[in-house]
Amino acid sequence: MEKAHHVEDVHRNSKDVREPFVPLVIIQFASSTKQAAITWMIAKLQASRHEGGAELTVQTMVMPHSDETMLYIGANTNRLLLAAEMMEMKKLHVDGHMREVVIHDLQSFQGSDDLSTFFTKGEKQKILLHEIEGVRAEPLDTNIPGYEQIKLYPGKSILKKYLSRGLVLQFYPLHDEEEIKRLGDEWYQYQKVFSEQPLDKIRNYFGEKIAIYFAFLGIYTVALFPPALIGIIYLVTFWKSVYREAIFAVFNLIWSTLLLEAWKRYSSELSYKWGTLNSSSALKIDEPRADYSGDLGRNPVTGNPEPVYPKWKRSCRFYLVSVPIISICLIVAFVVMLLYFWMQAWADSVYHSSGERWLYLPILYTPTIVYSVAIFLMNTVYRMIAKELNDFENHRLESSHENHFILKLVLFDFVNCFMSLFYVAFYLQDRTLLRSHLACLLITSQLIGQVQEAMVPYFFFKRRETQLAEAMKKSDNLKQLDGRAEIDKTIQKQAVLEGTMSVYEGTMDDYLELFLQFGYVFLFSSAFPLAALWALLNNVTEIRTDAFKMCRVYQRPFCESASNIGAWQVAFEVIGLISVITNTALIGMDPTVQKLLPSDMSAVNIVLIFVIVEHVVLAIKGAVAYFIPDMPKWVQIELAREDYQSKQALQKERLQAANRKRQELHEISRPRMSSRSTEI
Amino acid sequence: MEKAHHVEDVHRNSKDVREPFVPLVIIQFASSTKQAAITWMIAKLQASRHEGGAELTVQTMVMPHSDETMLYIGANTNRLLLAAEMMEMKKLHVDGHMREVVIHDLQSFQGSDDLSTFFTKGEKQKILLHEIEGVRAEPLDTNIPGYEQIKLYPGKSILKKYLSRGLVLQFYPLHDEEEIKRLGDEWYQYQKVFSEQPLDKIRNYFGEKIAIYFAFLGIYTVALFPPALIGIIYLVTFWKSVYREAIFAVFNLIWSTLLLEAWKRYSSELSYKWGTLNSSSALKIDEPRADYSGDLGRNPVTGNPEPVYPKWKRSCRFYLVSVPIISICLIVAFVVMLLYFWMQAWADSVYHSSGERWLYLPILYTPTIVYSVAIFLMNTVYRMIAKELNDFENHRLESSHENHFILKLVLFDFVNCFMSLFYVAFYLQDRTLLRSHLACLLITSQLIGQVQEAMVPYFFFKRRETQLAEAMKKSDNLKQLDGRAEIDKTIQKQAVLEGTMSVYEGTMDDYLELFLQFGYVFLFSSAFPLAALWALLNNVTEIRTDAFKMCRVYQRPFCESASNIGAWQVAFEVIGLISVITNTALIGMDPTVQKLLPSDMSAVNIVLIFVIVEHVVLAIKGAVAYFIPDMPKWVQIELAREDYQSKQALQKERLQAANRKRQELHEISRPRMSSRSTEI
Repeated sequence: MEKAHHVEDVHRNSKDVREPFVPLVIIQFASSTKQAAITWMIAKLQASRHEGGAELTVQTMVMPHSDETMLYIGANTNRLLLAAEMMEMKKLHVDGHMREVVIHDLQSFQGSDDLSTFFTKGEKQKILLHEIEGVRAEPLDTNIPGYEQIKLYPGKSILKKYLSRGLVLQFYPLHDEEEIKRLGDEWYQYQKVFSEQPLDKIRNYFGEKIAIYFAFLGIYTVALFPPALIGIIYLVTFWKSVYREAIFAVFNLIWSTLLLEAWKRYSSELSYKWGTLNSSSALKIDEPRADYSGDLGRNPVTGNPEPVYPKWKRSCRFYLVSVPIISICLIVAFVVMLLYFWMQAWADSVYHSSGERWLYLPILYTPTIVYSVAIFLMNTVYRMIAKELNDFENHRLESSHENHFILKLVLFDFVNCFMSLFYVAFYLQDRTLLRSHLACLLITSQLIGQVQEAMVPYFFFKRRETQLAEAMKKSDNLKQLDGRAEIDKTIQKQAVLEGTMSVYEGTMDDYLELFLQFGYVFLFSSAFPLAALWALLNNVTEIRTDAFKMCRVYQRPFCESASNIGAWQVAFEVIGLISVITNTALIGMDPTVQKLLPSDMSAVNIVLIFVIVEHVVLAIKGAVAYFIPDMPKWVQIELAREDYQSKQALQKERLQAANRKRQELHEISRPRMSSRSTEI
Repeated sequence: MEKAHHVEDVHRNSKDVREPFVPLVIIQFASSTKQAAITWMIAKLQASRHEGGAELTVQTMVMPHSDETMLYIGANTNRLLLAAEMMEMKKLHVDGHMREVVIHDLQSFQGSDDLSTFFTKGEKQKILLHEIEGVRAEPLDTNIPGYEQIKLYPGKSILKKYLSRGLVLQFYPLHDEEEIKRLGDEWYQYQKVFSEQPLDKIRNYFGEKIAIYFAFLGIYTVALFPPALIGIIYLVTFWKSVYREAIFAVFNLIWSTLLLEAWKRYSSELSYKWGTLNSSSALKIDEPRADYSGDLGRNPVTGNPEPVYPKWKRSCRFYLVSVPIISICLIVAFVVMLLYFWMQAWADSVYHSSGERWLYLPILYTPTIVYSVAIFLMNTVYRMIAKELNDFENHRLESSHENHFILKLVLFDFVNCFMSLFYVAFYLQDRTLLRSHLACLLITSQLIGQVQEAMVPYFFFKRRETQLAEAMKKSDNLKQLDGRAEIDKTIQKQAVLEGTMSVYEGTMDDYLELFLQFGYVFLFSSAFPLAALWALLNNVTEIRTDAFKMCRVYQRPFCESASNIGAWQVAFEVIGLISVITNTALIGMDPTVQKLLPSDMSAVNIVLIFVIVEHVVLAIKGAVAYFIPDMPKWVQIELAREDYQSKQALQKERLQAANRKRQELHEISRPRMSSRSTEI
């Protein structure tokens, strides 16, 4: 009770309480940014909430020579608590469940004895991100001070505008040196290769989104063991049988379905434990993305002001701009692929018909080299186009923004990476070429990745020195403008150093890499049984190098919530469906398999048999996915129980309120009666 | 405020208040039932709730000659309100939304000025059903008094035991003569054939489940217009083209997908309006079925006592008993079908090779007649087996009980009704036979149905006279035992009369009929384009005869909740998927279509082309179903808003509670201080 008291009192006049200033996030302005714009931003960050500010603590540092300004931003505990309640952040309740933080009920949350450590550093930074991005232009803010030409309109996130116009160079949270060291020791040390990842700690430090990625990578890697084992057995035993490929393909089809279903259940367990699983996720009242633009209107659910952009406009942009442009890109990629095969066929014929072959060797390899370069270029260009188009579509929610981006990437990479395999398998119908082409694609992409990632530690230590030297020079020159509280020198240096580190671009590329690998392993598994082994070897090291990069190479990313892998689940499941078709077709086309069937069977009937088999497998896959519940029973029960308890609490409180009201009425009516009695 | 007062006061000493007794539901005992059992049941119904009773008002009537006992059961308003709150029944709030009834907040609900009409009669009967079925055996109730051999165990519904042992013959709610007349005038009069059904009124009288059935029947019938129109055009124009069937099939495939998607959206609108749409239906805390048996345990969600039956036992019963028995039934049905075709082929050959054909005519028709009889017999037997198996599986929820029954029926009827079509289409590959067989199946089943249903009014009026006479005699002899309040003679007669009417067996058979019709129309639509027209004609009259039966022929059924058509949606969608396969195959097998393709194309490539087309259509269907949201935007927003508002209310009340607590503490501490100050 005392604590609730304390917190609310403190909140009302928070300026009276002094807490040591701990900088959590950094805003770094460009050296060319005008002072008026910097001052305005600082004022906005410090202004009180009812004036449209963020009510945060800001310390300003400038480097006199380069004229760079850095803001060290923190917040006192009450500000953080208030924001956490508004954001409906969940913390562990004493009853063992994740519950939304309620300030007046803080004493029921675990770890609330010491409010300064109640939130982890990651959570504090997440809150600050939300509050800083949430500072939006007021009706009177028509432009950024000092920049007449940079218009603002009400409801637009100010920080986003500064970032997009290059006035703010960087906006990043600070690492926690002690914690990251402890996490790293458990996570990526070589003696830990076969131990489980410390998922809870990863989640505490990096947020649910990244933890879910690593959990998926872990489960998927473990799931690769059985097919890899079969691959090894096939390699070692030289067992030749017509059933060899068919057995492997059937196993893989079942296995991939079970993997994806098991993952769905596991991720719901994780996200239940982490408090991100929503009982009715479709109906969540999400806030719009900070980048979302539109006329200022009202949210139909909450009634709060927010930008509104009509759906038909978005549909127009999607169907009239995005769809045609992406279709053109897909066609270009397809045509380039065809050109490659034609060039290769021509080169082959020249090479084989020539006399002095070694002279013509360059001709033989030119198509592949040209094609590799072309793929790389197309990928880069397409990536930019897709990003632009996606931003242009102006999705309201972060989730749909991301899902549309995933859809674009997946479509293109499907054509770019898998179409050539389809071409070889079903148009050229060349099994040997398919096997070598598949092996080539898989192994090349993994080797490149491995070399890149093996380089990482090397470059890291190399760069670290330069970074350190640079940071030392910079931080020595730093001059604190706002003299309220001296910032610790170590933190000053740390902030500058982390400002020179590379930025983690999100989980998108990591998932895309896994998606392509999943496709290589399962789409044509009957053609190349060793694919799973290669993928397994790759992923075992991938987990650790990714972990090292997260901890040591990148700037700390802001924590993001996630309850599952989102649209990637659908993407992987679609690959699973397609792999049924490709594998049945491959086996059906195998002449040795065809010999097993009665010899008087017509070609048409053979095809029909395989079509029927394919449909049966698809139906079984569909039934399995339909009948396996997406959540384990215990999670369902826990969710239902939470629902039930909150409903019970609501009813009880309503009943109490009604009783109180009645009592009040009773008390009001009594005095009157007694006064009347005295009159008599 | 006054009213909340009133209600709660009344609740506390409800015995002081006299309301006129209105009988709502009837329990009719068998004439052989021992008096001890009857008395015990009456005592249970009247006992107070904390003694495990239902706290209802019961009037007993006996017929001295036949010794039949009838209980006329009602409840006073406060009892109804209390039960409604416990059942979380929803009513229209003044804010225009359906909200759960909360007794202390009754004044915020529409129609609460007159509490006696606050609930409709249907709602009152639903509440009584819930309360009467909810009277369960206590630990001391080891057997039904008077029947040593009829054991009871704690938690078992007493009424269900009486019903299953034949002690209670009937348990039914009473019709509302005025209301049913008004509803009938709007619903099934012949001048209303083309006007919309009064769905809201149907829902108020018969409950959501039946209203949803008629809504679906209506939507489906309207959706049959376009394909029926095309069928007529094809019939009239005699336009011969190879594209004729293909165009029709493609139209039908798209149309059936859109129909099912549109229905999903429409039903969510209806159920939102009716308050049965749950934002998180999977997590609803449903009560177990009254028939559900198991050891008395605790509900894991609410902690309330209820029977518990371990899941593995149910799985054992399902996989080890149900699955094998049903498989055998399916195989038998399949073999009988094969026998029919063999017999038919033999009869054909005998007939055609014989000299004096007219002598052999009986032989030609014997197989069809035998097969028809066999189908009828198999259907009857299977129905009984399926019901037994389903009860044996002992499902906890009404919904899963029903879904498993639907699954069983659908599987069998698929084999029984559609397998012969598949056999003709793809094994015999006889297009003419397919068309005539399909037409025969569809039209026969509809004619039988129509004749049956046209008979209904005739038999109704025929029987009505007998019923009336019987009821008159009976009700004259009735003698009221419990003399508290005289029951109106008209109601006495009505109760007896309705006791002689047939019982409505639920929507299961109606859906099954539609399911089969849907299959006949869409599975082989390219073979018989007129199917939609026949179905349309059938359904237009079907709606009205069904409506007439509901209002006039059957005992009133208890209102049941529903938010959609449940497992039938999946069943219809599966038919939609299969129809893609069958129609592409049919068109692909058409020789005239095959002639359109380049003549140098091999048979294998032709097959492959159609396989590809089929996959593309399936993919499009899948994408359409995935991307069309199951709820219209406005329903989503309303649901989210309700969620948001209740969360806001909860937070506000918690805040107020905290403030009050603080104030109390303040008040406690003040007097002490002031007393101290006087001490100084």
